[in-house]
Amino acid sequence: MSKPSIGFVGLGAMGFGMATNLVKQGYPVHGYDVFPASVERFKAAGGIPASSLKESAKDNDYYVCMVASAPQVQSVLFGDEGIVAALPQNATLLLCSTVPASYAQSVSAELVSVGRADINFIDAPVSGGAIRAAAGTLSIMAGASDSALEKGRFLLQEMSDAKKLYLVPGGIGAGSNMKMVHQVLAGIHILGASEAQGLAAKLGLDAAKTAEMIKGSRAWSWMHENRLQRMLEEDWHPGASALTIILKDVGIITTSARQSQFPTPLCSTAEQVYLSALLQGYGAVDDSSMVRQYFAEPITKVACAMSADETAEATQLVLDMMEVTNLVAAAEAVSFARFLNVDLKQFYELVSDAAGSSRQFMTKGLEMIEGRAEGEKLEEAVSRLEKAVQKARDLHCPLNLGNAALSVLYMAKRAGLGGEGSASVIKVFEK
Amino acid sequence: MSKPSIGFVGLGAMGFGMATNLVKQGYPVHGYDVFPASVERFKAAGGIPASSLKESAKDNDYYVCMVASAPQVQSVLFGDEGIVAALPQNATLLLCSTVPASYAQSVSAELVSVGRADINFIDAPVSGGAIRAAAGTLSIMAGASDSALEKGRFLLQEMSDAKKLYLVPGGIGAGSNMKMVHQVLAGIHILGASEAQGLAAKLGLDAAKTAEMIKGSRAWSWMHENRLQRMLEEDWHPGASALTIILKDVGIITTSARQSQFPTPLCSTAEQVYLSALLQGYGAVDDSSMVRQYFAEPITKVACAMSADETAEATQLVLDMMEVTNLVAAAEAVSFARFLNVDLKQFYELVSDAAGSSRQFMTKGLEMIEGRAEGEKLEEAVSRLEKAVQKARDLHCPLNLGNAALSVLYMAKRAGLGGEGSASVIKVFEK
Repeated sequence: MSKPSIGFVGLGAMGFGMATNLVKQGYPVHGYDVFPASVERFKAAGGIPASSLKESAKDNDYYVCMVASAPQVQSVLFGDEGIVAALPQNATLLLCSTVPASYAQSVSAELVSVGRADINFIDAPVSGGAIRAAAGTLSIMAGASDSALEKGRFLLQEMSDAKKLYLVPGGIGAGSNMKMVHQVLAGIHILGASEAQGLAAKLGLDAAKTAEMIKGSRAWSWMHENRLQRMLEEDWHPGASALTIILKDVGIITTSARQSQFPTPLCSTAEQVYLSALLQGYGAVDDSSMVRQYFAEPITKVACAMSADETAEATQLVLDMMEVTNLVAAAEAVSFARFLNVDLKQFYELVSDAAGSSRQFMTKGLEMIEGRAEGEKLEEAVSRLEKAVQKARDLHCPLNLGNAALSVLYMAKRAGLGGEGSASVIKVFEK
Repeated sequence: MSKPSIGFVGLGAMGFGMATNLVKQGYPVHGYDVFPASVERFKAAGGIPASSLKESAKDNDYYVCMVASAPQVQSVLFGDEGIVAALPQNATLLLCSTVPASYAQSVSAELVSVGRADINFIDAPVSGGAIRAAAGTLSIMAGASDSALEKGRFLLQEMSDAKKLYLVPGGIGAGSNMKMVHQVLAGIHILGASEAQGLAAKLGLDAAKTAEMIKGSRAWSWMHENRLQRMLEEDWHPGASALTIILKDVGIITTSARQSQFPTPLCSTAEQVYLSALLQGYGAVDDSSMVRQYFAEPITKVACAMSADETAEATQLVLDMMEVTNLVAAAEAVSFARFLNVDLKQFYELVSDAAGSSRQFMTKGLEMIEGRAEGEKLEEAVSRLEKAVQKARDLHCPLNLGNAALSVLYMAKRAGLGGEGSASVIKVFEK
């Protein structure tokens, strides 16, 4: 039986990989992009070029939208030449762009109001980067009606790793919410990787050796490990993951948090640093360049001249700073997820195997999810972070996340949580 | 009767004014500075040049120390050639440098341990700038034993405005604490002035007209009014008030706050922006240059092209942002002052007439001090700030303080304070 024909819009780094993967799987894929060069490239890779949005939609029972932002989605779907009017009856539409859950829900409503309730709409943001997109092994967080999911499941499966296709309960918006709370961690940890290495440089530590220590420690984060090489090599142009990408995701988080009046102090702190960097011209640059916000020179220029004892002591400050900051990040993410009624078990499973992961999330985040708070007392974690923050201050090193985390911990301490396990910091985010 | 002879160290911008004022009042003043040029200048202004620290102290029953920082004070007082060993029996020593209260207390202890308990030591930080220093109309916050204050009072009076000499109860350290909690407001409002004008520029508003609106509104702060002209003219080199000065004061605050494990989220946020600017080379530059952290061009280049209605609406966002941020700043300062057992009535009186003043402190700060929370509900203030923060985000404008303030307010809202008067935000800082 021949495979069904698929329409596809958005042939950027991620979309191109996703679309060509479908081509390789034997689907006729009609691809469109506002940049003709992207369409040409897609044609060269075996895709069927579409000369317009409408043409990409016409007669295709399945359609994937992978443009960059909600305003672009709106134009692609409902603009004068949009695809919704052109899609055949009972078509299945996968929205893979990262958008606010409230926006995904508004698409549902608008489909009804324009008389296209027949369309099987799936809110299915993806994660994993261009390489996994091309390999068909993305993480996908899909929410929709059972019938729409039934129709679209084969396509979601083609694009995702078998273990990383999350059918998120809760209907339209649930997938986007799941991705969003995951990005709370990603958005913090990306800056955190630079903050840790910037502090290490300021302390006079060797960058690669410090990174090696981080890797094996409770301070580990997926983002630190992933961004490290690009940070060391200053391989920033063009950005493998441009600052504007994480900034867009973080903007969705803080905007949604404001709509819920939920505090996201660390994510918001990271956002402000990203916005400052944007102002300095770092928008298109790889986000591992954020290390420049902490250290003015390449960190590889630092040659450690300390004794073994001094080096161990300085390294410990970096580890403590990163670990305790990631603890507070876990609290911020878990509490926001709980607030949004995200399935926490699924959330944990997803994060553990994705870009938002950290040792703190895996251990302390799990305690928070399960309502436990064991091991080290909160006040002990405070002391460790405190020392690192003071040292950074003495060295005139900015430490945006470390300071924001410490403020949260002080609030927790004043709320009487000092003697409880450190995971109890989550209580300051809860009523 | 001839006036007593006075020793003086630290002939920088402030110290030079203070010392020459004493010369004008008819005192023989023996001045010393590490920079020979400053001593020469002092001699030309009628002072008696001292060729060493010891010489500046010898035979002088009164001594004023106005060097820049605690480490400098330590060296001046207790170094190998320090003044303590050289001062005559029962001399009176005024420490006018801004230092942590804990440091001032350590000086007391060290005087005892080196056998100089006879010295009448007064912890007397000053405020008001070089012009008022030269006019003898500074604000002075003096704490000491009653007997020391008795001895030094005439000298404090010579240097201060009659209404602005605060004899702070609590002994050594109390004066420094009073100055410190005042600087919580100054440190936040200096950045706040730039943040407000940066947002205004991003919104397309005329800088001077917006400033005029701020001046007459509940968003007013002394710092905004004071820094405005230099911000508009970009009169930054050399800095009338260099970034490093407020950064030093803010460092004292956050370091002391850490020692007490007290949260100072806004002050800490301001500190991080100052540290980032320091990294960018703004250290010696006037602190009104912080506007560059929000807007890349001179703000006077913005020509408002909006209708009257649009202009009014955009201006309101700036006013709301600044007002509600200053409300949270007042809560941070008052709660920290209360925590440190600072006399709140005196604190209020002092701030109201000093550089840390703001309309919010005068009104809402007073409510906080008196345990009231009237008028607008907290959740209404939240809504106003929220709108401004969202708009800034849409425009990609950093808004460090606005976002930090909003996080604090969300914590307050989650603590159930939404329906109370907005001054009740202070409760999130209190146990």
